Amino acid sequence: MFKVSVMYPNQAGARFDLAYYCTTHMDLVRKHMQAFGLVKTEVLKGLSGGGGQPAPYVCIGNLYFETAEGYEKGGAASGGALRADIPNFTDLTPIRQISEVVTS
Amino acid sequence: MFKVSVMYPNQAGARFDLAYYCTTHMDLVRKHMQAFGLVKTEVLKGLSGGGGQPAPYVCIGNLYFETAEGYEKGGAASGGALRADIPNFTDLTPIRQISEVVTS
Repeated sequence: MFKVSVMYPNQAGARFDLAYYCTTHMDLVRKHMQAFGLVKTEVLKGLSGGGGQPAPYVCIGNLYFETAEGYEKGGAASGGALRADIPNFTDLTPIRQISEVVTS
Repeated sequence: MFKVSVMYPNQAGARFDLAYYCTTHMDLVRKHMQAFGLVKTEVLKGLSGGGGQPAPYVCIGNLYFETAEGYEKGGAASGGALRADIPNFTDLTPIRQISEVVTS
């Protein structure tokens, strides 16, 4: 299994509409990614960095895929529809990581 | 549900023993954290950052807890045993994030 983490940095003054992200944006993700092996999604709301530190990321969207290539193939096939939706919920630029799930 | 992500930055020349981390270190995590509401663990190996970029993190260890406080309470009760094991598998300093699982 493979996991794509889309991480939105926790920056002071930035805008992030978590309700929109969890509903409209994730519906769009499923619509465009299901044919490319999307297995499940998970949305995380950053609470802290531990030890009284702020959370590094205000929100993380996790997408589990059957293959390492599914996410990039689905994104290309969507013709930029997912990327174009980002300004509807945030002015942050996300950091992405594609990982192999080694143990779970 | 709450999720603690322990993220090891992908730095050139750094040392990371994934086999040790997945076995010895994760056994130690479960030993010290189970009494504090640890539900499950997941280890991710960073493959890429998408679009030909390197992965931001070489490895991410995810710990799912029943409460937001479980991880820090377990860490305190372990008397530093988990932190003391870090040099046995890496010379990297991890970044931590405690999140609420909003949707899954």
